[in-house]
Amino acid sequence: MRIALDVMGGDHAPGPIVKGAVEATRDQPGLTVVLVGPTERIEAELTQFPEADRDRLPIVEASEFITMEDKPVEALRRKRDNSIAKCWGLMARGEVKAVVSAGNTGAMVAAGLMNAKMYLPGIRRPGIAAIFPSHQGPIVIMDVGANLAAKPEDLYQYGVMGAIYSEHVLGVTAPRIGLLNIGSEEGKGNELVRAAFTLFQQSHLANRFVGHVEGRDLYEGHARVVVCEGFVGNVLLKAGEGAVEFLFSVLNQDFAQLSTALPGDLGLQLRDRLRCIKTRFEYQEFGGAPLLGIQGACIICHGSSGDRAIHNALRVAATMAEVKLNELILDALADSPAQPSHADANPVPLGSDPNPA
Amino acid sequence: MRIALDVMGGDHAPGPIVKGAVEATRDQPGLTVVLVGPTERIEAELTQFPEADRDRLPIVEASEFITMEDKPVEALRRKRDNSIAKCWGLMARGEVKAVVSAGNTGAMVAAGLMNAKMYLPGIRRPGIAAIFPSHQGPIVIMDVGANLAAKPEDLYQYGVMGAIYSEHVLGVTAPRIGLLNIGSEEGKGNELVRAAFTLFQQSHLANRFVGHVEGRDLYEGHARVVVCEGFVGNVLLKAGEGAVEFLFSVLNQDFAQLSTALPGDLGLQLRDRLRCIKTRFEYQEFGGAPLLGIQGACIICHGSSGDRAIHNALRVAATMAEVKLNELILDALADSPAQPSHADANPVPLGSDPNPA
Repeated sequence: MRIALDVMGGDHAPGPIVKGAVEATRDQPGLTVVLVGPTERIEAELTQFPEADRDRLPIVEASEFITMEDKPVEALRRKRDNSIAKCWGLMARGEVKAVVSAGNTGAMVAAGLMNAKMYLPGIRRPGIAAIFPSHQGPIVIMDVGANLAAKPEDLYQYGVMGAIYSEHVLGVTAPRIGLLNIGSEEGKGNELVRAAFTLFQQSHLANRFVGHVEGRDLYEGHARVVVCEGFVGNVLLKAGEGAVEFLFSVLNQDFAQLSTALPGDLGLQLRDRLRCIKTRFEYQEFGGAPLLGIQGACIICHGSSGDRAIHNALRVAATMAEVKLNELILDALADSPAQPSHADANPVPLGSDPNPA
Repeated sequence: MRIALDVMGGDHAPGPIVKGAVEATRDQPGLTVVLVGPTERIEAELTQFPEADRDRLPIVEASEFITMEDKPVEALRRKRDNSIAKCWGLMARGEVKAVVSAGNTGAMVAAGLMNAKMYLPGIRRPGIAAIFPSHQGPIVIMDVGANLAAKPEDLYQYGVMGAIYSEHVLGVTAPRIGLLNIGSEEGKGNELVRAAFTLFQQSHLANRFVGHVEGRDLYEGHARVVVCEGFVGNVLLKAGEGAVEFLFSVLNQDFAQLSTALPGDLGLQLRDRLRCIKTRFEYQEFGGAPLLGIQGACIICHGSSGDRAIHNALRVAATMAEVKLNELILDALADSPAQPSHADANPVPLGSDPNPA
């Protein structure tokens, strides 16, 4: 199993990115991680891991990289030798089974979606699945921003793909599917969700479809796959992240005062707990967000990813390839009531300029 | 100042609702709260408050009420003598300056918006403003679900109204306005936000407009008014609520174990803190969500509102009338670059059936 890793992606690149690759190859004997980035910097990082199996950590030179601040489509055009495009190139030529990056999400999605040959046959628009925690375990929210012009058929396909990911990668048995809406009764919401509701009801997934799910009920986990349009999903994802940060900063501030009054190491214990609980709400655990509906596999990691997040992402990417996720998706789509057309000629991926000059 | 209160609205009605009214009249000598609901039940509740100034707590009989499970528009038609419609009727006839309810949000909005005469002149579509906490203090998010078919002009008007609410009710000096988006650079997002961006830039609010705000940055409070389309706003509101519930349930569970090991009353102290911090994230504090853009004032309280939330909502409603919020809004709109048309003939309020048989 070969996976391409964008060594220059992420706030802390390249150090923890290379470290994550070294750890992943150590844990998974069948795994080769192709390190894509500036050879010299990668070599320098690798000297810190003399025990690394260098045969399974080949380097592919990419002299440029796209920053978090770069405009995705513009940067992909301007920086011809960038690490993200190189990763996708390797996958397009069949040299790797998956690509992983903690870099510019818009560029990562655009690099894949600009090449319509990379779409899985029958998939109208690929989508990003984010993994949220819930009382029942991880839930899949899809799409969180790859597609800002979703049609009802897209939402249906997100349900199909999200359920397969939930079952075969996250290990959830017969995951139930819900449609994110602003009320739980039938007939609620905007045109998009009402039409998608009907599609689900008429599909072979009808018995797994639990109908509308409100934001408030997400964390109950009654639906393990929650489908939504990309703009809403992206707001949900980022606001969730912001809320957790805010809440824990308030808690930390408050408990800092309390913990000084505690005897022995209880104060320390308290703050350790808090840190530990916060981790459960963070991205690292779930190994990043997969872009589903493409030929191969693609995992987009959070910009702040450390070595553990990269390690997890590589493990998840390998699993996606091993379980033959795309074949499962194609089988499921064959049963679909929707009439999926091939990818539009001009997809509008996240962050692309929809009004190019 | 007379305000109509839906005594039958909310999960705990009528007990805490009546109590909140009694407390509000006690604290605000100039306030009269018209209690709208079944006279007998209200009288029964009032016997618990012998000290209450009954002259400032008149009753208006409403024999029916709309439940949380009722379909709003259908219920408004079927239950002719319901307390929500009665409240709005009082305001339409000028007998009260404001209406307050913790009942069915969809019915509360629909009852107001079905009567186009209740729209403030020049306002295309009224919107609900929700108050979120942030590092800088309360922020206004608008719209959170009154309008599911927002146009760029609506978002602009939400900015105008939200800023006036922030300044004159929440006491924020020259609040900055942001547009909720999935990226912070210009040109990001869907057509709606891109068009709204231009409207803000060309308006007299340009110097207060900070551009796009991502979900992640909401809680930083750099923008004290964040404008969005109703579906997104509603998801944001409810998901935020769900996240806080989920997070505190995890914290409670974890700390319950820790706190038994703490000496003295430290365990109790710890859990009290946690409860106290949670309160800061809850709705009660902010006195409910105002529906802005209507003749008069309307506050929609959370379904779980207790007497404190109702008390706060009545105080806020009184403030809205006292500061002449609507006159301020009309003045600000006169400076608007947008060409607001009058309310559409067929508004689609939250929860209404957009495809009536």
